[in-house]
Amino acid sequence: MALFRRSLGDVLRELRIQQGLTLRDLSAAARVSLGYISEIERGQKEASSELLGSLCAALDVPLSDVLRDVSDRVATEEVAQSVDPVVLASRPHRAADVGDVVASAA
Amino acid sequence: MALFRRSLGDVLRELRIQQGLTLRDLSAAARVSLGYISEIERGQKEASSELLGSLCAALDVPLSDVLRDVSDRVATEEVAQSVDPVVLASRPHRAADVGDVVASAA
Repeated sequence: MALFRRSLGDVLRELRIQQGLTLRDLSAAARVSLGYISEIERGQKEASSELLGSLCAALDVPLSDVLRDVSDRVATEEVAQSVDPVVLASRPHRAADVGDVVASAA
Repeated sequence: MALFRRSLGDVLRELRIQQGLTLRDLSAAARVSLGYISEIERGQKEASSELLGSLCAALDVPLSDVLRDVSDRVATEEVAQSVDPVVLASRPHRAADVGDVVASAA
C-alpha cells in the first residue's frame, strides 16, 4: 500500500537538498528538532499538520505544491503496484489487461 | 495557515457523501471507529498514513486522487490568505501587487 508519510518524506528531503540545506539548517529555520525532521524524511514518523506547515514555511514552498508532488509520487507507486509481477504470475488470465495498462501508461 | 488535516477532512467527507455512505457505513467498511472518522472529517484529528489508506480503500478512491483534491483545496486557501484584507490594509504600498494576483487568479 502506498503510504502518505513515505512519499511526503521523499518530497521534503528532495526539496531540502535542492535548496542546499542541511538537516541542521532546516531544523533551525523551522524550529523543529533535527532528529524529528530526519525521521519524517525517512517516512518513519507522521508529521502533524502544524509541523508540515512549519517545514513548508522554512523551505519557502507552498503546502499545496508539496501535496501535489506527493500526489504525483503516490500515483506512480499505485501504477507500479497495479502491475506487480507477483500479481501477474498469480493471475495469468489477467496478464493481457494489465499489459494494456502498462502500454497506455508508457 | 492552511492545515492539511482540515482540507483532508473536507475532501474525505465530500467523497463519503457523494457515495451516499453514512459514517456508520464507512466505519464498518474501513474497520475504523465511527467517532475517529468523524473527528478526521472535522479536521480535529490527524489520520495516520495507514488509516488514510484504509479510508481510501473503503471509499474505493486512489490515495493519489484524494491528495490531489486536498492540494487543490489548500491552493485555493493559500490564494485567499494572500489577499487577506487585513494584510492589504496594513501594507497599502503592496495593494497594487496583491491586486494583480487577484486579477490573474480570476
